[in-house]
Amino acid sequence: MTVVTNKGVILKAIPEEIPNVDEHFELTHRTIDIKNLNLGENEIFLRNLYLSLDPYIRFTLKKPDLDHIKVDTPIANKVPVGQVISGLGVSEVVKTNNPNYKIGDLVYGPIGWEEYSHIKSDVAPTFSPVNKELLNDIPLNYHASFLRMGGLTSYASLMAIGKPKEGETIYISAAAGSTGQLVGQIAKIKGLKVIGSTGSDEKVDFLLNELKFDAAFNYKKVDLDKTLSEYCPNGIDIYYENVGGETLEIVLNHCNQFARIVVCGMISQYNITNPKKKYGVKTLENIFLKSISMQGFLVMEYLGTDIQKEFEKDIVEWIKSDKIFYKENMIDGIENTAKGFVDIFNGKNNGKTIVKLADY
Amino acid sequence: MTVVTNKGVILKAIPEEIPNVDEHFELTHRTIDIKNLNLGENEIFLRNLYLSLDPYIRFTLKKPDLDHIKVDTPIANKVPVGQVISGLGVSEVVKTNNPNYKIGDLVYGPIGWEEYSHIKSDVAPTFSPVNKELLNDIPLNYHASFLRMGGLTSYASLMAIGKPKEGETIYISAAAGSTGQLVGQIAKIKGLKVIGSTGSDEKVDFLLNELKFDAAFNYKKVDLDKTLSEYCPNGIDIYYENVGGETLEIVLNHCNQFARIVVCGMISQYNITNPKKKYGVKTLENIFLKSISMQGFLVMEYLGTDIQKEFEKDIVEWIKSDKIFYKENMIDGIENTAKGFVDIFNGKNNGKTIVKLADY
Repeated sequence: MTVVTNKGVILKAIPEEIPNVDEHFELTHRTIDIKNLNLGENEIFLRNLYLSLDPYIRFTLKKPDLDHIKVDTPIANKVPVGQVISGLGVSEVVKTNNPNYKIGDLVYGPIGWEEYSHIKSDVAPTFSPVNKELLNDIPLNYHASFLRMGGLTSYASLMAIGKPKEGETIYISAAAGSTGQLVGQIAKIKGLKVIGSTGSDEKVDFLLNELKFDAAFNYKKVDLDKTLSEYCPNGIDIYYENVGGETLEIVLNHCNQFARIVVCGMISQYNITNPKKKYGVKTLENIFLKSISMQGFLVMEYLGTDIQKEFEKDIVEWIKSDKIFYKENMIDGIENTAKGFVDIFNGKNNGKTIVKLADY
Repeated sequence: MTVVTNKGVILKAIPEEIPNVDEHFELTHRTIDIKNLNLGENEIFLRNLYLSLDPYIRFTLKKPDLDHIKVDTPIANKVPVGQVISGLGVSEVVKTNNPNYKIGDLVYGPIGWEEYSHIKSDVAPTFSPVNKELLNDIPLNYHASFLRMGGLTSYASLMAIGKPKEGETIYISAAAGSTGQLVGQIAKIKGLKVIGSTGSDEKVDFLLNELKFDAAFNYKKVDLDKTLSEYCPNGIDIYYENVGGETLEIVLNHCNQFARIVVCGMISQYNITNPKKKYGVKTLENIFLKSISMQGFLVMEYLGTDIQKEFEKDIVEWIKSDKIFYKENMIDGIENTAKGFVDIFNGKNNGKTIVKLADY
């Protein structure tokens, strides 16, 4: 296997609203002669195994529109039309000119939506090894998100911004999604009352019966204001925000004094590119009236901190002791990657979307 | 002077929008025989000297509308129609049955909008003495707000939430108002670039020439988006929020990564009692995109903390060394109190509104 076909997904056109598989993405085939491939100093060549599909990627598909602002975040790195889209994933090193990696190593880092990735010397330092010893207890696919950025996102933001206290009430929107499901389980472990909403009855069952949430409901079928009054009679202490818009507007009215709003995402607004058509939230006065804090974050902020160390210790222990699990929506193959991504915005995913690119 | 007429202002009707002097307030006259007045245990009887008029009082004049939420804040204490309105101020003890106070002491605490206040035993512990030694350097009127809750509000919220760093840019709305003017001066002392907006050219002059802001503008005369681009070319690191609504919507687009928004007030929204008519803010996605934190606070949170101690030390030093001052809009007499209060919402105040109730 020295000459391979590397299938990948490129950005065909910039989506104005919800991306469409045929219109905005294109599958490409490139032939690579691995044996004769020249690697520059510190470069590595990877066979990609599992790719994590995350909502933030939507922001890398837009035109830069924040030119007058200092923004130093990965979501500001736009993918040019015609180039392979990026994501985080787990790969096997198949060729290396980097002293930190040998052939056969498993690594985690920013790869392309493609079967093989040639990692340049400036990006190579952002990769880190996968601890193979953990594979006895924890499957490799969990290393693409659950044990890494995905899990850390939920854990660190809940702990650092949400500051959960036993007996408090947390409400989680998009609770069956990649961050929501973990946040809910961690909050249960910490002794909170956990309420979640999601977009299908099947997912409500999942939250109630598999994740053991205290209450869950299908937001499409209820009056949110009344439902929150019913399920959160003592008000909301933490709102884990994934959706934005009208949901946020209603939740603010149910927040308690000193409530914390962890802004992980506002998925209802991402695909509205006309700023005038975004939802206008009318209840922000609550922030003043009830001394609420509302905070966005970058998971990168927590890398190298005590919170990351606590996360790594807790998460492995919780998985081994069956206290926590991670529902994955496993997509098969690069050919289905674009569809898997688009489905996130249509609410068709159930759990964290991961693409299996190759057997290991 | 044992029999006195105690003039006071009662709530005549609950205002739906901006309060109106004749419609919502009424001056009352009650006769009190001080000599024969019986004080219960720990009660004190005060002659009020200076009264602070603050925007939060607007919230005490509303119908309770947050019944389903746990709210434990002074702004949730509604004034019943027919009763005297409350505020913070400085008074002289003229009769006492409380071992902590003797006749002639000066005290600071929650008094009525009236010339004399009879303080019950449950409220007496919230009073504290005025240090008479400071009166050589600092006038008594400053003790009604500047050295107390008013000053602490600006100082503590800027320090604890704004976390100012030398070289950063702060934008302050309602910058000539009671909190804004102090926040701007403190930010200058801390080495920030300070931009303020206000509602008249006279106040712009005040910000530029007396407070030495780096830039100031009359928001009624400019396009806020363009003006912020011009005055804050490196973006906004701290937004000190006093007005809410469309201003907040525009500012969010100018915020930098990790910007902090200190929510001190949203005065543009207070008098809109129909929730559907409040301004809908469409740019909250910035909180997620730029990891912004936005936080309300209660000044009471900071009482007894290190921040309060630092405030008391810094503020006295800054006043004595002329590094800072407090523009007061001094109202004369209880008869003009309601008008002074209403003027805050019409933007007619310039500086912090204080009522002088009696000579000392």
